[in-house]
Order: sequence, then C-alpha cells, then structure tokens
Amino acid sequence: MSKKDLNSVLAHIDAHIEESTHHLFELLKIPSISTDPAYKEDCSIAADWLVEDLNKIGFNATKRETSGHPMVVAHTGISGKHIMFYGHYDVQPVDPIELWKKAPFDPYLAPGDISDVICARGAADDKGQLMTFVEACRAWKNVHGKLPGKISIFFEGEEESSSPSLVPFMKRNAKELKADIGIICDTGLFGDDTPGIVTHLRGMLKEELTITGPSKDLHSGMYGGVSINPARVLSKVLAALHDESGLITIPNFYDGVGDLDSKIKTQWKELNFDYKEFLKKVGLSKLAGEQGKTALEMIWSQPTCEINGLWSGYIGDGFKTVLPSKASAKISFRLVGEQDPDVIRQNFYQFVKSMIPPDCSVEFKAHGSSAASTMSIDNPIFEAARLALSDEWPNEAAFIGCGGSIPIAGHFKSILGMDALLIGFGRDDDSIHSPNEKYDLRSFHKGIRSWARILDKIYN
Amino acid sequence: MSKKDLNSVLAHIDAHIEESTHHLFELLKIPSISTDPAYKEDCSIAADWLVEDLNKIGFNATKRETSGHPMVVAHTGISGKHIMFYGHYDVQPVDPIELWKKAPFDPYLAPGDISDVICARGAADDKGQLMTFVEACRAWKNVHGKLPGKISIFFEGEEESSSPSLVPFMKRNAKELKADIGIICDTGLFGDDTPGIVTHLRGMLKEELTITGPSKDLHSGMYGGVSINPARVLSKVLAALHDESGLITIPNFYDGVGDLDSKIKTQWKELNFDYKEFLKKVGLSKLAGEQGKTALEMIWSQPTCEINGLWSGYIGDGFKTVLPSKASAKISFRLVGEQDPDVIRQNFYQFVKSMIPPDCSVEFKAHGSSAASTMSIDNPIFEAARLALSDEWPNEAAFIGCGGSIPIAGHFKSILGMDALLIGFGRDDDSIHSPNEKYDLRSFHKGIRSWARILDKIYN
Repeated sequence: MSKKDLNSVLAHIDAHIEESTHHLFELLKIPSISTDPAYKEDCSIAADWLVEDLNKIGFNATKRETSGHPMVVAHTGISGKHIMFYGHYDVQPVDPIELWKKAPFDPYLAPGDISDVICARGAADDKGQLMTFVEACRAWKNVHGKLPGKISIFFEGEEESSSPSLVPFMKRNAKELKADIGIICDTGLFGDDTPGIVTHLRGMLKEELTITGPSKDLHSGMYGGVSINPARVLSKVLAALHDESGLITIPNFYDGVGDLDSKIKTQWKELNFDYKEFLKKVGLSKLAGEQGKTALEMIWSQPTCEINGLWSGYIGDGFKTVLPSKASAKISFRLVGEQDPDVIRQNFYQFVKSMIPPDCSVEFKAHGSSAASTMSIDNPIFEAARLALSDEWPNEAAFIGCGGSIPIAGHFKSILGMDALLIGFGRDDDSIHSPNEKYDLRSFHKGIRSWARILDKIYN
Repeated sequence: MSKKDLNSVLAHIDAHIEESTHHLFELLKIPSISTDPAYKEDCSIAADWLVEDLNKIGFNATKRETSGHPMVVAHTGISGKHIMFYGHYDVQPVDPIELWKKAPFDPYLAPGDISDVICARGAADDKGQLMTFVEACRAWKNVHGKLPGKISIFFEGEEESSSPSLVPFMKRNAKELKADIGIICDTGLFGDDTPGIVTHLRGMLKEELTITGPSKDLHSGMYGGVSINPARVLSKVLAALHDESGLITIPNFYDGVGDLDSKIKTQWKELNFDYKEFLKKVGLSKLAGEQGKTALEMIWSQPTCEINGLWSGYIGDGFKTVLPSKASAKISFRLVGEQDPDVIRQNFYQFVKSMIPPDCSVEFKAHGSSAASTMSIDNPIFEAARLALSDEWPNEAAFIGCGGSIPIAGHFKSILGMDALLIGFGRDDDSIHSPNEKYDLRSFHKGIRSWARILDKIYN
C-alpha cells in the first residue's frame, strides 16, 4: 500500500473527527462502574454497545459472559501478522461526586489548554483511549473497504476492580487470543509533543486490613482510658510502614527490586522531566520518595506503599465521642523488578500482626496483585511503532516507564507468550480516578491518526 | 409529712409503672438527634412534648427558642428549698444503623438479665433517666394534689452536640435558673445494687483536624512515590499522641492533673471494682491506660486522648488506588483536675503543626470543651440524697467518679454558683452512643422511686 493510501485514511479521520467524538460520547454515557454492583447492568450494556460497533466495521465481535462482567472479543483477517488490541470499557467510581463540575456520565466538550477537552468519567481511562484504535479501524474500513490485516480485539470490563475473570478467561481462550503482539492503550504521552512506548510497568499488591478492639463501639467517657482503641493501633501500624527517609520497613520488601539498567537510566535522564512542574499542577513542590532517586525513577522503577483509604469510628458531621470497635485501611503497594507480590503479602501480614496488642485482632482482605513487567524491545513491531508515532507527533517517540500497574501486560507474557506494546495518549492532568476526568480532543484525534500510521507500518 | 405519705407515693409509682413506661415510649419515638440538621424539627417536637407533659403535672412549663434547639424550662412552688433538675432530650446519632436489632425509634420491651429492658436510642441517654424524675413528680402530684416544694426543671436539646446555646442561655436567665442545688440525672449506678452520687467528673476537649497534601485526589500509580500522602502524615501524627507506656505526649498535657486525694483513693479501692468483668463484657481483658493506675483511677481521675473518628481516601466496597488529597480525624481528650482545655488545645495544635511536612497543611475545627469538676459535699442535700438512695437500693450509696463529661455541672458552678448533685440509674451495658441502646426497666422503676424518696428527704 502506498503512502497515498495512508494519507487518504488520515484525511478521512480529520474529516470525521466530530462524528468520532460524538460516537465516543455514546459510550461515555454508559455508567459502567465495575467495582460497584449497582452498575452491573451498565457494564453489560457497554459491552453490547462495543460488540455492535465492532461488527459494523468489519470485525466478527461477540460478548462473552464471565462470572463477573462480560468480555468483548472480535476478530478480522485470516493470515499474516496478527496483532491483538486490548482495552477496558469499565470505569472508576465517581465519588466524591460533589466535586464534579457536571454529571460524570453526561459527556461534553470544554476549552482546554492546548485543545478542547472531552469531559466525563472514563474519557481518558480507558474509553477515549480504546476508541482511538476503533476509530482508526473505522476510517481504514471506510476508505479501503476492509481492515489491513489479521487484527483481534479484546476488551474487558473489570480492569478497575482487579480483573477477577481475566486470567481464567485468557487461559480458557488462549489459542483464540494469542497473537504476534498484544497492544495496550491505557498509558499516557510522555510530554504533550512526545509520545512514549512503555517498556517498564510497575506491579501492584492491594490489601485491606481491619483491626478490631472492643466487641462494639463504646462511650469514650465510660471506657476511654481502660480500653484499647483500634484506631490508635491502626495509626501505629500505618505510621510504621515507612521510616524517616521514606523507605518501606516491611522485612525483605526490597528483595528483587534490582538496579536500573544504566542505559535506561541515562535515557530517562535525557528526557529532562520537569518534576517541579508535574508536582506544581497538584499543589505540591517536594519529591516525597526515597532520597537520592530522580522523580522518574521514583515513579517508574521504585516500589511504593500507599494508604488509599482509612476509616474508623464516627465520620459524619458534628462529633460523637465514640471509642470505635474497628479501624480499617486500604493499602496498595506498587512493585518493580522481580518483587514477588505473594511473598510481600505474607511479610506484610506478619509485620502487621507483630504490632497487634493482646486485646486486638486483625483481619486481612486481599484485593488482587500483579508482578511488575519489563518489555523486551527485540520484536521489530516496537521500532515500527516508534517510527510511526514519531511521524505523527512533533517530537520523536521514546521508550519510557509507567508508574501505574497494567497487569494485563504480565498476563500477555505469562499466559499467551506474547510481548505487550503499550502506547497511549493520556496527559498527566487527565484526572483519571479523580473528579472531572477529561481527555484532550487532541489526544483523541492524534491518537486515532497514530494507530492508522502504526497499522500502516505493520501491514504495509 | 409522715412516712405514710412517702409510702403512698411509692405505692402509686408501683401501681402505675406500666403507664409510666408507655409514657416514656412516646418520648422515645421522637428522633431528636441534635447533631444532624435533618432532625431539627424532631428536636422541637420533643421539647413541645415535654412542655405539655410538665404543664399537666403542676409545673408552669415553657419552650424557649435559641439559635439552636429549644430549651424547656418549668417551675413550681414559691418558697423554701429550691432544687433545679436538669436533663437533655436530644440523643446521639444511630449509625451504624445496620447493627441495630430493631428500628432505634420504635421502642419496645425485651427480656434483660435482671429485668425487662427498654430498647431505643435515648432509652438510657437521657430520656429514660430524665423521665424518672418527671414520673416521680407525677406520682407525687397524683397522690398529694401538688408537688412537694419549689422545684425547677431545665431540659436542653443540644447535649450530644456540644451544647452551643447552653452557656449563653444560662447567662441570660441566670436569675431564673439559680437554685440551692442543681440535680443532674445523666450518670449510672455504681453497681447493679449500689447507687452512686458522682463527685468527680472529667472534662472534655473535642477537636477535628484535616491534613491536606495534593490539591486533589491522585492516581497512586502516576503520583505514588513522588507525592506526599496526607493519610500517612495523619497516621504519624496520631501514632505520636501516646508513648509506649500509654502516656499522652503533648507538651505540658499533664499540667494540673494533680494527685488524687488519699481518702477518695481509699474509698474507690474499697468499691472492689471488678475491672476484668467490666472489660469482658466488651470483649477485652487488659487495662489499656497508664501503667500503675487502678481501673477506676483510669476512668475517673486520669485524662485520656482518644481517636473517635478517622477517614481518608476511598472507603467504599472494592478498591480504588487513589492517593488522597485529605485525611481527617476527630479526637477527644477527657480532662481532670485543673487541666485547662484552652491551653491543651493550643499545645495540641502546636504539637500537630510541628509534624506537618512542607507540602502539607493542617486545619483544625474545635468542637467544644469543658473543664473537669469536683463537687464539694458540704451541702447537706448530698448526704440527704445518699441516705434516700440507700433506703431504696440493696446496698448503701457511694460517692464516686464518672469518666464521662457532663459540662453542665461546671456551668452550674461557674454561671449559677450552685453545686451539682449527680445521680443516675444507668448500667455499663446500656450501649449509650452505640447500636441497641437500652435502659433497664428496674433502673427506670427504682429510679422513679429513688426521686420520690429524695424529694421526701429534702422537703419533709
């Protein structure tokens, strides 16, 4: 296929960007919050919407039921290079809802700093991103009458709730899902003009603990002073998780972290990441991680331990002098290198248990885990994609890291035996997982164009 | 008045106890939660109910509006010894509502360990208790056609929400409210067969703090490791409030605590308080206070610092890997001796501020305070009441302490210049401030009889 063939696809994308945006709005209107059982039906509706849409543009798409939310699987093409594109149609919860400027599932365009922005829960994570690929396919089909080669699509609806059905589903359907490479669109641009291909992904371990003291909530006047307060015990446990220098104190936690490859280290330094600007956007000024590390190392190649939620006693308006029976926390660890989530979980449990005094007990609830993954870039598709991205964006594309955890990349390797190519167009200020999530129209538009260029590089 | 006159009142109380109980049920049905603005109207309805009831039994009662919930003030009699009886018609919130066996404002009788029990929010704190006095007055009026002497009644509706209107109201109406003694019925029996008159009351300081880190909730993958987590900072602050031996670490916190009078110390030891049994009832076994103190000293004459509420980040079902913008806690201090709540508040603020790192800020919200109070028992009414109680109950009445804070006692002294006589009939397992609050029918019945005997001792 000639250069002209690609150009006609790009022109078609440009001419129909408004249509593509309103098409995305339809998907954004479906409140597919996977973590809250109240939205189960909406997750199913989102899956149906995608199946119908993919069938329209030359895929053979089906909804596959699981014990949780359904999967969407689609195929087209018979032979040649085979790519499989992954995304997730589920979204994060919306609380605190009162901080949203408008209803989170009523998408709209608003002026942004470099283009208009698409505002809605899921705009960036991940509906807007996955639709960049779908829209590129639609344009290709409309211009050329068919898609360029053997392409599969795999969308899940449980990414924001630990993907309980994912691994069993992939194992059951490994033969169907395996391709030459898995493409994942759930990451961000490195800079506004610089796309990135993520080769370092942190893993994740999510845990919840509840410490129980008295068998019921007590009056702090009658029992305060003689009775153990589980909120105090929880505070001591949480305070002990980091030492004064920011290091995590769980025994053997750093086993397997390893040193960063010196070439990668140099490459990251050359990115000249402006961490002060990055922090300033969220009202901060100081690096809070381990002393001596750069900001990118802290985000991409250092493990963390964060308190994601904390609750005990009376948390309403006014005051209640209760001595609480229970105190709970949700804690997540970001993992790197060869850190083993199962070993860290056990060491964490032991660490907590060693701090529980005689009159208290502790219960743990595991919320899922995944190991970190580091991609090999030997597969020529990596370099092809990097060149395609460099053609579309003002600056050359870079191989980078990602602080977030995308367990699917590890599963591609371990279950399907294929590498993952992680490309995305989000920006740092997209407020994913926060109120007022948005996705730049520029990210959406140039994202669609990027996939057209990548498809062209892979198949022509 | 002869012994026979008292006996006829007691006989009338016994004959009408069922009626009295159902009368109390009417008051318990009104959800007068003062701390939640949603129940403002119900607080007013409870005040109206009391006004109407008091007017029926020989008082001249009126509802007095304040900027918060209304007061109820009632008078009867012209000359002679003047007592003023205080209680509060407001109740605590009911959450966690799911732990209640039945609806909290639908009172009912259930079998208890030594008598039937009255089940409802407010049954013990304080509607059931204040109605013991009202029912004693009703019986007296029904038997003798009039009340025995100069009696005033003063009910407030903000006791569970820091009584914001109380002091201004008392100051404005000091002349009307001042009596020879103030009687407060908001305490408990010392033992099931042993009534107590409280002479040591702890004070209270209630504070709320919110630590802010990032300007919004962040994704812990994107920001975890470089950004400060305010929940971690809060944990460090809360963990630092007590040292390993249970002592409170705020500078100068113990100034004014003083030593316990050796006579009182001996008297308390002679009460042979079974702390193991006391703790066992709530699933505990070990004294959690300062080492070397007895359980009664910990509850009655030692200060405390308790976390009453704690919240940050995502606290719903499932998991959200949010790096929270804010972390908050509600903390109360029980104060004793001459501890000054205003000084402690300032020292607490300083202590917290000294632990806030550069990228965080802290805001405080004061929720009220009161100094501790220790009664003088020189007023002969104290001994009269002790003898009357000893006549009614199996064991002799004792002068005791109380771990809870009843600021009104201090206000009686400072604003009205009168002592407070604190008598109540609650039991330790009444679950006040907790789900499934109850008041023993025996407490209610013998409480009414106790007040009849005390009125008799005071006025005859």
